This record gives sequence, structure tokens and C-alpha cells, in this order.
Amino acid sequence: MKKRLVLLGASGSIGRQTIDVVLQHPDLYEITALSVGRNIAELKRILSEVSVKDVCVIEEAAMRSLQEEYPDIRFCCGDEGLLRLAEMDYDLLVNALVGFAGFAPTLRAIETGHDVALANKETLVVGGELIKKALQQYGRKLYPIDSEHSAIFQCMQGNDAKNIKRLIITASGGAFRNKSRDELADVTAAEALAHPNWSMGDKITIDSATMMNKGFEVMEAHWLFDMDYDRIDVLMHAESVIHSMVEYIDHSVIAQLGAPDMRLPIQYALSWPDRFELHQDEPLDLAKIGTLHFAAPDTDRFPLLKLAYDTGRKGGNLPAVMNAANESANAAFRKGIIPFLKIEEIIIGAVNSAEYKEIRDVDDLLEADAWGTAYADKIIRGEE
Amino acid sequence: MKKRLVLLGASGSIGRQTIDVVLQHPDLYEITALSVGRNIAELKRILSEVSVKDVCVIEEAAMRSLQEEYPDIRFCCGDEGLLRLAEMDYDLLVNALVGFAGFAPTLRAIETGHDVALANKETLVVGGELIKKALQQYGRKLYPIDSEHSAIFQCMQGNDAKNIKRLIITASGGAFRNKSRDELADVTAAEALAHPNWSMGDKITIDSATMMNKGFEVMEAHWLFDMDYDRIDVLMHAESVIHSMVEYIDHSVIAQLGAPDMRLPIQYALSWPDRFELHQDEPLDLAKIGTLHFAAPDTDRFPLLKLAYDTGRKGGNLPAVMNAANESANAAFRKGIIPFLKIEEIIIGAVNSAEYKEIRDVDDLLEADAWGTAYADKIIRGEE
Repeated sequence: MKKRLVLLGASGSIGRQTIDVVLQHPDLYEITALSVGRNIAELKRILSEVSVKDVCVIEEAAMRSLQEEYPDIRFCCGDEGLLRLAEMDYDLLVNALVGFAGFAPTLRAIETGHDVALANKETLVVGGELIKKALQQYGRKLYPIDSEHSAIFQCMQGNDAKNIKRLIITASGGAFRNKSRDELADVTAAEALAHPNWSMGDKITIDSATMMNKGFEVMEAHWLFDMDYDRIDVLMHAESVIHSMVEYIDHSVIAQLGAPDMRLPIQYALSWPDRFELHQDEPLDLAKIGTLHFAAPDTDRFPLLKLAYDTGRKGGNLPAVMNAANESANAAFRKGIIPFLKIEEIIIGAVNSAEYKEIRDVDDLLEADAWGTAYADKIIRGEE
Repeated sequence: MKKRLVLLGASGSIGRQTIDVVLQHPDLYEITALSVGRNIAELKRILSEVSVKDVCVIEEAAMRSLQEEYPDIRFCCGDEGLLRLAEMDYDLLVNALVGFAGFAPTLRAIETGHDVALANKETLVVGGELIKKALQQYGRKLYPIDSEHSAIFQCMQGNDAKNIKRLIITASGGAFRNKSRDELADVTAAEALAHPNWSMGDKITIDSATMMNKGFEVMEAHWLFDMDYDRIDVLMHAESVIHSMVEYIDHSVIAQLGAPDMRLPIQYALSWPDRFELHQDEPLDLAKIGTLHFAAPDTDRFPLLKLAYDTGRKGGNLPAVMNAANESANAAFRKGIIPFLKIEEIIIGAVNSAEYKEIRDVDDLLEADAWGTAYADKIIRGEE
């Protein structure tokens, strides 16, 4: 029987690669419903390739015109539409949404009895505690799609989690890894978007350049693998060949390596505990690559990595504030409104200015998100 | 309940490290019987540390004098003594013997219902087919102690063997990896014994310098993991940090890394599928190591690696002939009787001169071993 998938964020980088994996295995998987944002042209291309029953878009006007053009598909829209897809009848939610928007559909999917393959790291960064409680309450599983967390998940197979000594998350360092802080003062968004190893969406590529992304991954690993922050290390590794590692109590280190191709972690999230063939243009060839480099991370050079550890340890509303400030600052930098180093100034300012509050429910999260956004937007407006 | 071990080859490098692992976990393991060769001084040191019931030595005279000195221990001697230890009542045989001598006790242990932790790679090189049949017939398991095969074994955990695409055995290249063939003409045994990464016994260190050892490991992997030779690759990796890898059909590569400390694979062979803490002076620190190198092996430079593939594929008596010729040539080089490059000339000559025969039983193996030894010794005598 085919595994029935609901795919949120189908037109993004992870979404399109998820579709590619499904098309490589039409006997194993089918996408029964999907969402896109505003990229209606890409949606139409997708609908020519895959046959789905339900589609969600952001805007109501787009929904109406699509409903006329595709009478056999049920359309819905907005945040409510995403929740509707999350609670349907299917086997696995693939959440490839970007940003805080990914949180609510993840929670709804778990609460309505679904497992989730999660590419949206903000879900766990902002609401890890709520998600963890829901997973326990509803007896569901989360499969990581991030390459680092998929690597850790793969390195944990066949091992008892109690025997893990620490997780080692590798970090390429992003587009500016060879620049000093002085040189970072006037880098542009176009430079930041040229990631040395991975082809990804714009938001995450900027997050890589600031290393906010690596900080998010540390927090994500904390929740996914129930691991203290003291037992999660970051290791600079320029080539991104080792995607991450697990060190066990006997000092054995298990690592997962591969080509920089997100289809592998996507497929593993679908195929676990089994594996299936995956066509790749350039599988890993270590003899050809020749050399791998490693170094300890410099948290003075990358203060947002340290901030993520500190904020993750404090918990409560602060991770959501940090994430909201990052979303605003990241977008403002991409629009050319603020310089690169202003991103971290805004995020650090937001976290330091916020009053600690506990997170009891989604409303508390929304409040923290709104507070972080308002703090960042005020500074960004001052720069305009 | 403690796991009761019989340890063959207790005074060698692997033997002493096995004792260290057992002494680190007195609540988990006990050595009930052990063997040494002629190193009686080392035996006495061992007997001051561990309390055993049975001991085997090579020579009868040594046995008699030890029996008087240690009346509470039962002593035995010679090949018959090793077989006697192998068929006793215990939980796991740790076979750390060197050379073809390791074969018969392994087979006897399996035939008398025991699992075997195998450091003696010649067992599988010469008699892989007989061992495999016995394992199936008696429903027993073999646990690899070689660091490369332990790495592969660790990388297979939690994965279905049908999903393996290939095994990637890493090779440091030994003491002479940076020398051209011309430069190899007059290297000495002392130079060959200076392995860049691992501290091992003399015989295996010379086998590393000729890369006969890596060829043996390919053959060992063939039998241990039931893998075609076409699906076993060797990758040069100077630092010996990645101990070996498994590539799966989805192109995911799982690797095992660690410090060059044989106690880890020894302990994993004892603790599998669990892991226990292991004290190491210098656990792996990739940030400190900084750089890892990889390259394809040069089989013109290392003809014995290619010979091992060819001989493994042909099978029959030829692997035993190859091993016997290597044992004689390796020993002759260590004694300064033949030059380094003569080792491979003797081994290649032996395999090419031998007539192919099937191996039906241990007697066939002994015959092949004797033939290879005689072939090599004749050439070596000519050089004396």
C-alpha cells in the first residue's frame, strides 16, 4: 500500500525535492494534498506532474480562480486551510513550510494522530516543548528532514539512546565563513545568498551566513533527540560532507556522509527504517573530494550561535522572540533595508529586552512571536 | 551474569588490550581460560592480574614447570591445548592468535556451540568457506575485532543488509605509503615496523607496509558480511580516523570514526548490541586533527592488494597458499633474510604457481598451507 503524504510548502526547495523523491517511487508514495504560498505558476506546474485531491494556497482570490480552472480538486486557503490539510486522512505530513508559520500545522497534525516529517526547523525552535508534549500524548513520531538531524537520526539506528555521549552537528559556516567581522560590515544579500555547498531557499541561506541556522539546529536537536545542550557540539566542517555525528559512551563516533542533496534526508524520512534506491547525479566520491577540514567554531565571530545555546537553555518565550526577530531582520537584510551585522544586533537586542514568560499554549507562542516581530520591526523602520 | 571469555593469544597486542577491557568492566566480563605462546614472563604478569582456571602454552616443558608453580590452574599445551580451550564451557571465544594457527580453534569453538570474537583475520582469509558453513550449521555468530570490520559492523546496525550498496574499507597505506617502488628496494624491517597511526604486533605491521593486510581485510569482509568482491572498495585515508564505511542504496554513507585504539573494537565485540563506557587517554578530537585525506588506491604501487582481490575471487586452495607464502616471506623479511620487495615476489609467485584445488575440509587447508610454506621457504633458503 502506498504511503499517503500531505506536503506543506510544495513550491519551495524542500517541497520540490520531496515531489522528485515521490516521482522516483510512484509505487511507494503518493501526495494526496499539498500547499503552496503565492507561487501559482509553480503550483500549476506541480499539478501537471502529480495528481492530488486537496490544495491550499495563501490568498482567497487565487483559490477562487484555481477552483474554476481545476474543478476536480478541492481548494482551501490561508492558515485555516493549512490546518484543514493537517487534519485530513493520510499517513505522513511533510512540513516544508518556512518560518513560524510551520508550527501550527505540525501541532494540529500530531493532535489528529499523524506522524510528521519535519523540514520546518522553526516548529521546534519556537515550540519544542509543546510539540514534545503532543508527541507523547498522541503517541506520534517526528522524522527530521534537515540534513544534520537526518544524519544524527541515521547514526542512532541500532543503538540505544542511553549510550549517546554527545551529538556533533557539523557547520559549513555559510557564505561568509572566511570573512572577518570587519569585512562583514558591508556584505550584500546577493553575496550572502551564494552558499558554498548547498542550494537552499533564500531565508535559510541568510540564516546560514549569520549561523542563526546552526543555532536553530542545536535547539532542534535538543528537542528531537531529548539531549541536554551540554551534550550538543557544533564542529566547523567546510565541505559539508559529514552531515553530522553521534559520539557514544565508548568513544565510538558514527557519522553520516553524503552528497549535498536534500533528497536523501527527505527520502529517509519517508522510507525509515527501510532504505530505497535514490537517483543522484553525483553521489559522494571521497577520493575525488580528497580533503575534509574541521575546526572548533568561533562564537565571538558568530555570536548568534552562542545566543541560541543561551536562549535554548533559558527557554520559555525567549526562543520564539529570537526566532521572530530573526525572521524580520533576515527579511529586512534581503530587501537591502539593514546591513548584515544589524541582523545579529536586532536579534540579540530582542532576546535581551524580552521579559521571560512561560509558554503554556499556542496563544503564548503567538504573543512571544508578535513581541519579537514588533521589537525588530521598530528598529528596522528606524533604518528605512 | 558475567560473560565468560576464553582468550587465545593473551600476550599479544590484541590479547593485552582485551585484558585491559575486561579489567575496566569486572562486573561484566571474566576470562576463564587463556593461551599464550612462548612469552612465559608476560603470562606470569597476566596471571597476577586475572584469575583463570585453564591456561595453554606452546611448549610441554613450560607447561610442566608452570603446573608446579600454579597448582590451582590446569595447564595444557600445543595445538591440542588450544582446541581443548576452544571446546570448554564459556560464552565467547576471543581469538587473538596470529596467522593460520588461529583457524582450527575458531572452527572447533563454532562446532562446539560458541560465538567467536575474531581478531585473527587469517581464519577467514584461508578458511572463510568452511567457517561460513560451520556458522550456518551450528547457528553461531562471528564478531569482528579488526578495526575496519568492527567499523563496518557498527555502520550496519539498524540497517537491512539488503540495502547495502558497497563497503568502503579505509587504508592508511602503512609505513611506506609515501615511498615510490624504487625507494622500497632497500627499506629495512625497522623502518617497516614504524606504523604511522597504529601500534600493533610485528607481523601485521609488516603486512600493513606491503598492503597484504588490506588485501586480507577485503577477503575477511567478503566472508564476514557475505559481500561480492565487486562491492568492496578500498579507500586510501592517511589519518586512519574513519575506520571504514558502508554506502547504502540511497547513497547515504555511514562511517565509524575513532581514536587509533583497538580497545574500542574489542569492547564492541564483547558488548554488542549494547555499548559501555571505555576509558581512553585520547578520544577522537576532529577539531584538533583538522584535516582528513582520501585518495584512490594505486594497485600498481601495491600489487598485493590486487592479488588479494583476484585470489579471493578464484577461491579454493589459493587464499591459503597466498597466506602461507606471506607468513614465511613476512617472517624472513623481519629476520633480514630477504629484501622488502621480495615479499610480494614470493607471494605472487606462490599463487601463480599453485594448482587450483577445492577446499573440502581442514586437511585440504593444511595441505594448501604446507604447499605455500614450502614454495616460499625454498626461495627464502636460496637467499640465505
